[in-house]
Amino acid sequence: MPDETPSPDTGPASPAARLRARYGGDTPLLPPPAWSAVVEAQLRHRSVRAYLPDPVPDDVLTTLVAAAQSAATSGNLQLWSVVAVRDADRRARLAALAGGQRHIEQAPLLLVWLADLARARTIAAERTGETAGADYLESTIVAFVDAALAAQNAALAAESLGLGTVYIGALRNRPAEVAEELGLPPHVVAVFGLVVGRPDPVHTTPVKPRLPQEVVLHRERYSADGTAEQLTGYDRLLTEFYADEGLAGSWAERVAARFGSVEGLHGRHLLREALQERGFPLR
Amino acid sequence: MPDETPSPDTGPASPAARLRARYGGDTPLLPPPAWSAVVEAQLRHRSVRAYLPDPVPDDVLTTLVAAAQSAATSGNLQLWSVVAVRDADRRARLAALAGGQRHIEQAPLLLVWLADLARARTIAAERTGETAGADYLESTIVAFVDAALAAQNAALAAESLGLGTVYIGALRNRPAEVAEELGLPPHVVAVFGLVVGRPDPVHTTPVKPRLPQEVVLHRERYSADGTAEQLTGYDRLLTEFYADEGLAGSWAERVAARFGSVEGLHGRHLLREALQERGFPLR
Repeated sequence: MPDETPSPDTGPASPAARLRARYGGDTPLLPPPAWSAVVEAQLRHRSVRAYLPDPVPDDVLTTLVAAAQSAATSGNLQLWSVVAVRDADRRARLAALAGGQRHIEQAPLLLVWLADLARARTIAAERTGETAGADYLESTIVAFVDAALAAQNAALAAESLGLGTVYIGALRNRPAEVAEELGLPPHVVAVFGLVVGRPDPVHTTPVKPRLPQEVVLHRERYSADGTAEQLTGYDRLLTEFYADEGLAGSWAERVAARFGSVEGLHGRHLLREALQERGFPLR
Repeated sequence: MPDETPSPDTGPASPAARLRARYGGDTPLLPPPAWSAVVEAQLRHRSVRAYLPDPVPDDVLTTLVAAAQSAATSGNLQLWSVVAVRDADRRARLAALAGGQRHIEQAPLLLVWLADLARARTIAAERTGETAGADYLESTIVAFVDAALAAQNAALAAESLGLGTVYIGALRNRPAEVAEELGLPPHVVAVFGLVVGRPDPVHTTPVKPRLPQEVVLHRERYSADGTAEQLTGYDRLLTEFYADEGLAGSWAERVAARFGSVEGLHGRHLLREALQERGFPLR
């Protein structure tokens, strides 16, 4: 990355500098943006994959969960739970189930976010003798979305306390074994993990540029006009970014590898069957 | 709500007071929590359903989308888009499709968050001639989760700029008509809406208490021990909260109404078929 890019973690940086890091150096200037301490914290985000072993104390965990519970939840249903895993052996086993991600073993805390329809089903069954509504795809989607909104608040709260995080989607590679490891009852499944810990200052990573705003932001109606050129420019930017990180290939190659074949899903092509076995009929 | 509850929007409040509002007055004291400006903003959250007509300017929209794009995204795939709807007639039509929610018409801006597999499918098809991976439930889940992480950053950014928000899950009531209204191509679907605007100070709502932390936070392994009693206490707390808002019934009754029958889903029991028609085969 060029020298003028602000360090992701330290020191002040202007809103313009934060936006330049988020969209890459070639980005045309954005209009003078509205700004706050929250936005500042959000724009600094990058995933951390190297951690110090310092424990995350209980008062921090309390704060992360309070932040998570402060996110919106559909109809106040609160269809999620979270398991805080500190035990090193359990983290090692979960790391193995997630394809051997070393940072799960290295960081002191793994939060496993759960779509939890068990609580709501129990309540509905006690009151009405019925749980038909819980069997539909809609209810599974609400639980996954609820868990994601909560986790994002926790992730940002952690970063605001000087911690680093990285999401672990690979916890969906082997849902049955993750459920067994965590003692999950029927109607509860892991959505993803979130590694939390103190970033190792020796191995920092820069902010990763995202797609130009014009590609993701549509006005009034969806329009893909001009997207092809923007994607070409972004692909060039990311190829450079990856090269600076010592990685080969382009962004488009990575996208194609994920969706061009079933193998790109690393076992997650079985997610539907796994969910159905765990009590999410997806009707 | 008792007088000692901090006002949701104005003035300073101690971490202890914020936590009391989030969990209700009867909550046993939590350990002295770690705290930051970000956590403060998160704990103040409540949904806003009464708005002033003041427009949300473009520089604020830029910031909200930059905040959204700064959230983590699985494998940097960025499987989401957002449509900013300001046009009053379009907002009125979308409000009708969402069961007549007046705040969609009242607030100046509706952000419709989209699960967008169209971009990635195009890239994969161009590179490999294949898009098999995109057809699995896993890919739809990733797109929904990506959209949720992004939206939660935008919602918190908006609140940090003095705006109010409310999520509109009811945009999933009639997915085909919402897609038509927004000109969505195949492989793109609305996940939910987010109303954004200046809260009407005449109609403020207090912070809604959530479940006790012990219910949602598990340590090492999932455990529902003691949950039944905690849920009874929470139900009492929420019945009081709803009564103060002029609403009848308890929390458990609301949960039972949602899941006890197909009718509780307000048409969303057809979400699976609607997604499949829009190019999400959910294999």
